[in-house]
Amino acid sequence: MSLCAEQPKKRMFKFELQAQSGRARAGIFHTPHGAIPTPVFAPVGTQATVKAMSPRDLAELGASLILANTYHLYLRPGDALIARRGGLHRFMAWQRPILTDSGGFQVFSLDALRRIDDEGVTFRSHLDGSLHRFTPEKSIQIQHNLGADVIMCFDECPKPHNREAVRAACDRTHAWARRCLAEHLRSGDPDRQALFGIVQGGIFPDLRAESVRFLTDLGFVGYAVGGLAVGESKAEMLATLDYTLPLLPADRPRYLMGVGSPEDLVNGVARGVDIFDCVLPTRMARHGAALTRRGRLNLRNLEHAEDDAPLEAGCACYTCAHFSRAYLRHLVKSDELLGHHLLTLHNLHLLLTLMREMRAAIFEGTFEAYATQFLAAYRPTHKEASAPPSL
Amino acid sequence: MSLCAEQPKKRMFKFELQAQSGRARAGIFHTPHGAIPTPVFAPVGTQATVKAMSPRDLAELGASLILANTYHLYLRPGDALIARRGGLHRFMAWQRPILTDSGGFQVFSLDALRRIDDEGVTFRSHLDGSLHRFTPEKSIQIQHNLGADVIMCFDECPKPHNREAVRAACDRTHAWARRCLAEHLRSGDPDRQALFGIVQGGIFPDLRAESVRFLTDLGFVGYAVGGLAVGESKAEMLATLDYTLPLLPADRPRYLMGVGSPEDLVNGVARGVDIFDCVLPTRMARHGAALTRRGRLNLRNLEHAEDDAPLEAGCACYTCAHFSRAYLRHLVKSDELLGHHLLTLHNLHLLLTLMREMRAAIFEGTFEAYATQFLAAYRPTHKEASAPPSL
Repeated sequence: MSLCAEQPKKRMFKFELQAQSGRARAGIFHTPHGAIPTPVFAPVGTQATVKAMSPRDLAELGASLILANTYHLYLRPGDALIARRGGLHRFMAWQRPILTDSGGFQVFSLDALRRIDDEGVTFRSHLDGSLHRFTPEKSIQIQHNLGADVIMCFDECPKPHNREAVRAACDRTHAWARRCLAEHLRSGDPDRQALFGIVQGGIFPDLRAESVRFLTDLGFVGYAVGGLAVGESKAEMLATLDYTLPLLPADRPRYLMGVGSPEDLVNGVARGVDIFDCVLPTRMARHGAALTRRGRLNLRNLEHAEDDAPLEAGCACYTCAHFSRAYLRHLVKSDELLGHHLLTLHNLHLLLTLMREMRAAIFEGTFEAYATQFLAAYRPTHKEASAPPSL
Repeated sequence: MSLCAEQPKKRMFKFELQAQSGRARAGIFHTPHGAIPTPVFAPVGTQATVKAMSPRDLAELGASLILANTYHLYLRPGDALIARRGGLHRFMAWQRPILTDSGGFQVFSLDALRRIDDEGVTFRSHLDGSLHRFTPEKSIQIQHNLGADVIMCFDECPKPHNREAVRAACDRTHAWARRCLAEHLRSGDPDRQALFGIVQGGIFPDLRAESVRFLTDLGFVGYAVGGLAVGESKAEMLATLDYTLPLLPADRPRYLMGVGSPEDLVNGVARGVDIFDCVLPTRMARHGAALTRRGRLNLRNLEHAEDDAPLEAGCACYTCAHFSRAYLRHLVKSDELLGHHLLTLHNLHLLLTLMREMRAAIFEGTFEAYATQFLAAYRPTHKEASAPPSL
């Protein structure tokens, strides 16, 4: 039942490893909706729209992969409705690759509203309180309806420090991964959608190794490192990547879920991550903040009121080419939609540019110098600074 | 002191009447920031941004004039701050013509928060309750700071049916018009900014005629018909245009303030209006509604949930070329910013296209047929239907 058994000519999904610089990898991940140059950052389109961005904005930014959320789209407008519209790509007019999560992270985050058992999760909608149930099979079926190029196994994401809880979550995640793969092969089309496995194991090297072993034995098109960016320190996150990623097969893409600050992207790529997604750039924009190569700017601060400089000198994005910090601050203070749009555009431009620069540095064999220089100039705010900004 | 006395070579502002079809006029209004083909609809950028539109969106739509609000910009971020940024055009990165209102309509609308005397209006900010005072001179000074191509006299806009109130508002408006013109000539640059007078007179033909006489004697670059779309019936509004517009000089642009439903645009152009502005297309979009040639669509309605059709068949806008009603409904129901953006884009596209079509029909001498056909197909909702949709 392993996807590895398929003939090469039939494989719509293929990861080409093109270059390495240290552990950093550059590659191409081929999908039915086009090739994704890696390392890649995927903007998050929770409700089938990357907030405040049109598809043409995303294309202009050079986004090659976006993420959509199974939980949200299942509830509204409904995955069956989207399937009847021809799937997510057509529904949202995005013809490049899409990745959907499994919905697991969202339903596990509902706290009081959910109950977990070995078969699945029963939960109440955050929209109207109605009762629903996700199982591994259901998650895969929903993701089939949505039709993203990359779909994810339904997993349990535990708090990372409690070994017993992590151990139990691993067992459940592995059992569910087997069921997800079986459901995908039974009712899905592996030529159209690639299923990724999710490695769990918290901050415990032996549990991570066991999880990698179990999942690679099953055989997935790609592998996510799950259970990170959920409460552990930055140092713990990086250490986990350090000992987990080398265990994964080199010829499969590696995905670090929910991570996307500039320093995390650099540190992740340095360790061999190929794919990232995060709401950070879009969410920060809606809160009136800009990402720059020197750290974050809060546009609400008075210091920007009469500042004619762009968000970042030398930035080639539409926002920086046309608008001053003073104007952007006015938009933010006035709660104008254009403020969300222009800040989102800039924040995504920075992260996508950063990914392109890292990819180029990997090809040139200069990644370590690039990363060192970037991190030396970058000043994360205190929330990001729990780990030193180093390789 | 009349602007008419200026030499032609010095006149940065010039209205060329190019064609007429019945009373409908096609022309070019030349300004320091470019030529405005008329009849023209000006999208409203209250706070120095047309809500949910970037300047490049507006340029793509073919907008040749936008409006900004003196009251709002005076309060936030402040007209002096904008002047220090080089004026509104540079501040908001819009290099085509801009028109600012006088702030009068907004401060008169504050009701409990304002007190009027012959010298001006004292009012409290709707933002923080702070006390402010506008006089005719102050309004012109603020508009000088903002630097729009077209600026407006500070006027009093009365309820249209009470003759004594309208009479008193006319007297005050005329006295203030004289003071505005004097202040503009004293401290402004008539080569850079054109001052328009505003005709008042409610629904009373003799008061309208007297107002036209007074203002044309003073001599303005253009004339607005004020005090309409403020509570009178559609029939009264059209009748007022019928007897007022022919009194205005043919070689000056005529501006109908605050009007912009499709039928009002057609009926206004039919009577000789050259310039319109209205929040309708942008505000409707934020409320989840689309303008079409057959009437309004409320995207919240269930009937659109699985409708794969665009908002309007044959529409060339980005929204209609890429997105279904079903997707737009999903965005509206999910309160996604992209919904505001895409509906605003479509609504403005329709109105700007309508203006271009009317202009072409005037050149071809077929305006009446065009208007009749448009109005026959258009079904205004009940709020718009107070006047029959006829010429």
